[in-house]
Amino acid sequence: MTIEIQIAGDRTLHVYENENIYSALKRNGVYITAPCGGKGSCGKCKVRVLDGQFDAKGYGRLQKEEKDSGIVLACQTTPLTPLTIEIPKESRLVLGGRIAIAAFKDPAAYLTSYGVTLNPLVKRLALQLPPPSIHDNISDLERLKRATNEASMKLSGVSYELVSTLHDVLREGNWHVSLSYTIYDDTSAEALSLLLTDKCKRRFGLAIDIGTTTVVVYLVDITTGEVLDIGSTYNSQTRYGDDVITRIVHATEGGGLDDLRDAVVGDINTIISSFMDKHALSSCEIDGAAISANTTMTQIFWGLNPASIREDPYIPTVNVYPTWKAQTAKLSINPQSPVYTTPSVASYVGGDIVSGILASKLYKNPELSLFMDIGTNAEVAIGSNEWIMTAACSAGPCFEGSGIKHGMRATPGAIESVKIDPNSMELTLGVIDGATPVGICGSGMIDAIVEMYNTGIINQKGSFVPSRSTRIREGQEGMEFVLHTDNVLHRDIVLTQVDIENLIRAKAAIYAGISLLLNEVGMPLEALDKVYIAGGFGNSLNIPKAIMLGMLPDLAQDRYVFLGNTSIIGSYLALMSDDLRKELEDIASKMTYVELSVVGGYMDEYISAMFIPHTDMSRFPSCH
Amino acid sequence: MTIEIQIAGDRTLHVYENENIYSALKRNGVYITAPCGGKGSCGKCKVRVLDGQFDAKGYGRLQKEEKDSGIVLACQTTPLTPLTIEIPKESRLVLGGRIAIAAFKDPAAYLTSYGVTLNPLVKRLALQLPPPSIHDNISDLERLKRATNEASMKLSGVSYELVSTLHDVLREGNWHVSLSYTIYDDTSAEALSLLLTDKCKRRFGLAIDIGTTTVVVYLVDITTGEVLDIGSTYNSQTRYGDDVITRIVHATEGGGLDDLRDAVVGDINTIISSFMDKHALSSCEIDGAAISANTTMTQIFWGLNPASIREDPYIPTVNVYPTWKAQTAKLSINPQSPVYTTPSVASYVGGDIVSGILASKLYKNPELSLFMDIGTNAEVAIGSNEWIMTAACSAGPCFEGSGIKHGMRATPGAIESVKIDPNSMELTLGVIDGATPVGICGSGMIDAIVEMYNTGIINQKGSFVPSRSTRIREGQEGMEFVLHTDNVLHRDIVLTQVDIENLIRAKAAIYAGISLLLNEVGMPLEALDKVYIAGGFGNSLNIPKAIMLGMLPDLAQDRYVFLGNTSIIGSYLALMSDDLRKELEDIASKMTYVELSVVGGYMDEYISAMFIPHTDMSRFPSCH
Repeated sequence: MTIEIQIAGDRTLHVYENENIYSALKRNGVYITAPCGGKGSCGKCKVRVLDGQFDAKGYGRLQKEEKDSGIVLACQTTPLTPLTIEIPKESRLVLGGRIAIAAFKDPAAYLTSYGVTLNPLVKRLALQLPPPSIHDNISDLERLKRATNEASMKLSGVSYELVSTLHDVLREGNWHVSLSYTIYDDTSAEALSLLLTDKCKRRFGLAIDIGTTTVVVYLVDITTGEVLDIGSTYNSQTRYGDDVITRIVHATEGGGLDDLRDAVVGDINTIISSFMDKHALSSCEIDGAAISANTTMTQIFWGLNPASIREDPYIPTVNVYPTWKAQTAKLSINPQSPVYTTPSVASYVGGDIVSGILASKLYKNPELSLFMDIGTNAEVAIGSNEWIMTAACSAGPCFEGSGIKHGMRATPGAIESVKIDPNSMELTLGVIDGATPVGICGSGMIDAIVEMYNTGIINQKGSFVPSRSTRIREGQEGMEFVLHTDNVLHRDIVLTQVDIENLIRAKAAIYAGISLLLNEVGMPLEALDKVYIAGGFGNSLNIPKAIMLGMLPDLAQDRYVFLGNTSIIGSYLALMSDDLRKELEDIASKMTYVELSVVGGYMDEYISAMFIPHTDMSRFPSCH
Repeated sequence: MTIEIQIAGDRTLHVYENENIYSALKRNGVYITAPCGGKGSCGKCKVRVLDGQFDAKGYGRLQKEEKDSGIVLACQTTPLTPLTIEIPKESRLVLGGRIAIAAFKDPAAYLTSYGVTLNPLVKRLALQLPPPSIHDNISDLERLKRATNEASMKLSGVSYELVSTLHDVLREGNWHVSLSYTIYDDTSAEALSLLLTDKCKRRFGLAIDIGTTTVVVYLVDITTGEVLDIGSTYNSQTRYGDDVITRIVHATEGGGLDDLRDAVVGDINTIISSFMDKHALSSCEIDGAAISANTTMTQIFWGLNPASIREDPYIPTVNVYPTWKAQTAKLSINPQSPVYTTPSVASYVGGDIVSGILASKLYKNPELSLFMDIGTNAEVAIGSNEWIMTAACSAGPCFEGSGIKHGMRATPGAIESVKIDPNSMELTLGVIDGATPVGICGSGMIDAIVEMYNTGIINQKGSFVPSRSTRIREGQEGMEFVLHTDNVLHRDIVLTQVDIENLIRAKAAIYAGISLLLNEVGMPLEALDKVYIAGGFGNSLNIPKAIMLGMLPDLAQDRYVFLGNTSIIGSYLALMSDDLRKELEDIASKMTYVELSVVGGYMDEYISAMFIPHTDMSRFPSCH
């Protein structure tokens, strides 16, 4: 027996007996936010019941006004009669929303700046074979090998799949065919597939960045390096949790590794299929891909058990990946396409960071530079052309909204800037797309804390000073600051004391990571010549505010360089150049990973950074 | 709607509307002989209807007595009511019948006779890895590679499947595991799978011979070379036709490549599964296989389109096979097991013949030797340690019963010897297992022709001399000689004029092949020091009779050596020794293939050999 749920203005779903609304929505492809994965603990999967009877196991921390207006937690609520529901904007996982993509406007020009020859992952050789005769009756494979020998190609391997189509393709192509191949270790070539020259004329590759939150794919003409199209979407794994740890738990304890793998591969394949439609491609025309991602995302993409990433001593299964095939990756391109994976350094410093070092060119310059990737997690690296040290900061995803009561991503309706007039104490909010605010995103959170601190609403520890503002009140989870009151939805947007503590912990983790890495090499902060900031969140960061918060070192603004998404640039460069793939591997092997939790002095640095901006004000001269 | 067919004393099947009996039997796993594949042309799929109404599209060349006794052609007959049928013995495809297997009684001792070290296709390395710690936190794969480096193994590749189980196996085995690997090109090792030492203690490999007619599998302890068990069965592809040409036609024009592939892989897997039961093996304990077969059987085994083998200029897709995996071959052993394929020379000289040259040691000796494999087809090779020439004789499978009216394989009921008293002209028949004769097998046919020739029943051309015997009569297909009359079954066993012509053509093709190869190198027959005879039929060959027929050269009997099934021995040797695999490839590259149909003088030689024993009696001094 099933019960119907009508989504107002949308479709009707069927719910199984005893199935909750969250599960039924998910099963039907309607994704709503649930960082906890539907366990009733995050309180984000709100839906409003407009009509019908239901049974709610609990309401979490819903406000009375919310309950009165019909809001329930989808994962805690089971229909008793047919229901009509509404999914509030803030609960929707917006796919294809505003995703920051790239500061690299012209990747092909950027590739040229490395001074390497264009030499893509997959190469082709046009062959015109002499047809066999009774006097030249060697086998098809020997005929192919004779031709590649004549072209001075040393074939070290031939795939079964190539051989299984060899007979038909040679004859259908009338002995005029294209061989796609890839080169390993500089010298030996693996023959991947034999293509009909006419049917597979064009040659494209994919550069892929798998972020914890977003997935970006470039469609690249590998003969020129031109990026023809860009596709992006949210990583559908988000429905199993916002951060890598929750997903590892889902993969291991929940037995959901395949779910997670299928989710992200499905996202990429959806983008591929839109490319194919739009550019009228056949799958044989896309014959190579490079992926760049953090260690957990990489392992899940390849279906490798990520359990040990989460457990002391934090061991990844692979750092330097063999180049496997698209069919193994389940990507819907030419099944024999090689899929290159940018190498990782450790469980919490992945191929995305190695890509970032390549894209920043930090490894080429003698000056001391800092590279930071602030995304769903924060990784830092310090170094030069001689050495690189790297660490992961356990900052968590709160700047992306997770673990923050009204936190959200930088999508329409997010409060992205906050100003507090020091005289009138009046608030001015900047909201993405000028919409009615439905939550607050990372840059808004930083703004709010710095403004609250500057106006004395919170003290250096981040604790509320109630006498300073009438907007401070006692909420269900302790003190909170009201940013916005919505008289229509009967819902306030607040920053709670707990939210502020979480954000200060996150910024302290980032700052402590930077300090400790410098400390390890005995260099002062001032020695930093450049600070490269990468990552989706990094793009919308207000540097002076982030310095005032004590998240970034107090350096002149001109030392800061925004790079945008360097992970996708790294995979693009890997796709296009044999030399740069080697460079990636050199960089990875050169990077010394520092496990911050076991470095002496970490707790001291961290605790000292738990103030705004810091207990040691001498480190923040510009904040005096 | 279905109609029931009761097989007398056996089970009941359901026949679909308009389905013929042959198809219904096949669909239910009851295999009967039908060399034409059920097209109504061979007239062999006889069944007797004991009860019920049916519709017969035709009766082919059934004798009146047969029709009267209820015999119909299964492929031409559709039931109208429920039927009870009986399947005559001669129509049954006996599985597991009397299959000649090997003259090599002790393969392990034979392996030793080559003076090579035991060095099987798959090797294992026991590893005790140091568990990771926060100070030794390299990835699992790097840990494995560090250990193989320490063991001086140069890993050139690691399979995806190994990596995908790496995390779990290392931890389940508590860092004590077994690595199975194989070595390519002398130097570089490919890591295949990582095994739990306790669960996969024993190590077995399979040596496989895929004959057109029979399939033989050795279960080999690869640590000692001991053959633990032997399984054999008829190649189920026989239900699509007796010879390779019919099967190629089925594979290409009939779109039945997958059927044929599945049939033979199924046969091998059935044997594997009986090994596993009998010896309580787990599939991870069988981790390597070598196959030896003719070119067509090899291509079909690997699922490669064999169309061009049949068409001028007779091109195989592959001669020297890469070593692919068991999962690609669909063999139900450890999916990562390498499957070695003995190399072929040409479309009609396959890996079975190269195996035969290895097994005969012809390639090691300075004397001139002849190697012949007489099975479903006949291949010959002539040579020494310096050169080898080889050719295929278009002899066809008539010595195995195909194309001979009452021909059958050497199974119980087959007339295997014939004596005709020159005075009384009385016949004495030898029947396998002393049963009532149901047909005649190859050695019986040779006997019969030689005896008929010696007693003047046929002349030198093989034509009947009717005045010489009352057993000669006019049959439906011209003149025939009655070998046996069965008063119970109302059925005579005869050799027809057409049968005799077919047999003379076959023996002429073999003799002409040998003569021409010798001619090509300008050597006389007498120069042959040894004649090695391999192949299933070869085993039961009566040498003096075969000489009298003019099929074999007239040499002293002591120059003839029976080898039995050298194809299985070749795959056994390949499984057990890296050196002998190299030897096989050397032999194959050394063998010069001669396409007899384009060699000058072939037709002359062939026509001259169409007499008993030959037009040139000086070549058969012992037959004067």
